[in-house]
Amino acid sequence: MDKQEAMTNGLQLIEKSKICLLGTNGEDGFPNIKAMLNMKHEGLHKIWLSTNTSSRRVQQLKKDNRACVYYVDEVNFKGLMLVGTIKILQDIESKKMLWFDGAEKYYPLGIEDPDYSVLCLTAIWGNYYHAGNVTFKIE
Amino acid sequence: MDKQEAMTNGLQLIEKSKICLLGTNGEDGFPNIKAMLNMKHEGLHKIWLSTNTSSRRVQQLKKDNRACVYYVDEVNFKGLMLVGTIKILQDIESKKMLWFDGAEKYYPLGIEDPDYSVLCLTAIWGNYYHAGNVTFKIE
Repeated sequence: MDKQEAMTNGLQLIEKSKICLLGTNGEDGFPNIKAMLNMKHEGLHKIWLSTNTSSRRVQQLKKDNRACVYYVDEVNFKGLMLVGTIKILQDIESKKMLWFDGAEKYYPLGIEDPDYSVLCLTAIWGNYYHAGNVTFKIE
Repeated sequence: MDKQEAMTNGLQLIEKSKICLLGTNGEDGFPNIKAMLNMKHEGLHKIWLSTNTSSRRVQQLKKDNRACVYYVDEVNFKGLMLVGTIKILQDIESKKMLWFDGAEKYYPLGIEDPDYSVLCLTAIWGNYYHAGNVTFKIE
């Protein structure tokens, strides 16, 4: 599997995933993981997620925006890790872009709920695993 | 959901999970995630995983043994994070304990394969999510 193939397969894995795992630098230097809904992506370069502004994850990202997002196919043993930095967005366009039916469950005040934030990962590099690892830079 | 209930539900999530996600501190301070087979646990306190000694994850853990392990039920939106430190074990008893049919695929030389290592997480605290977060210390 060459790098181009790994990136193509990684993109397919994103497209079929219901969730992804967000990795952050937690308190006291310990890594943290949390499952998030797979929302939107632009190739492998940009990943958008939504979360509560009041969440532990947002507090961590305000202190340290280095993160990773991971997608997994546990049936076929495939995994994609994207590593980069996250911007916390609260502009109405980003919030509209990620809004979905049922989001009121998480953000009762709707799109303008101040407790609704959008996270945007800009990936620098990635690793695709399927019977072997391929690491690649993301331009 | 009180802490005891969260810990009981977390334990059930471990018991039904095929895989877990290992979070480590990667190069340049970025968190990394990798899917691993769910192998063995002792309550919420000890988690054992197996991996290749030559893997990127083992190299990272040799430099910094702070880690987390995450279990997810993506259908019912449940998640368990266990945070602690990892010991890399290569004693024959630990390696026998985690050996399984088919492990030759990963460790062709068998139980004594030097490229076969056991990781043991001692969890300090955890967080269980299901329609809300409950954080608890692990004694």
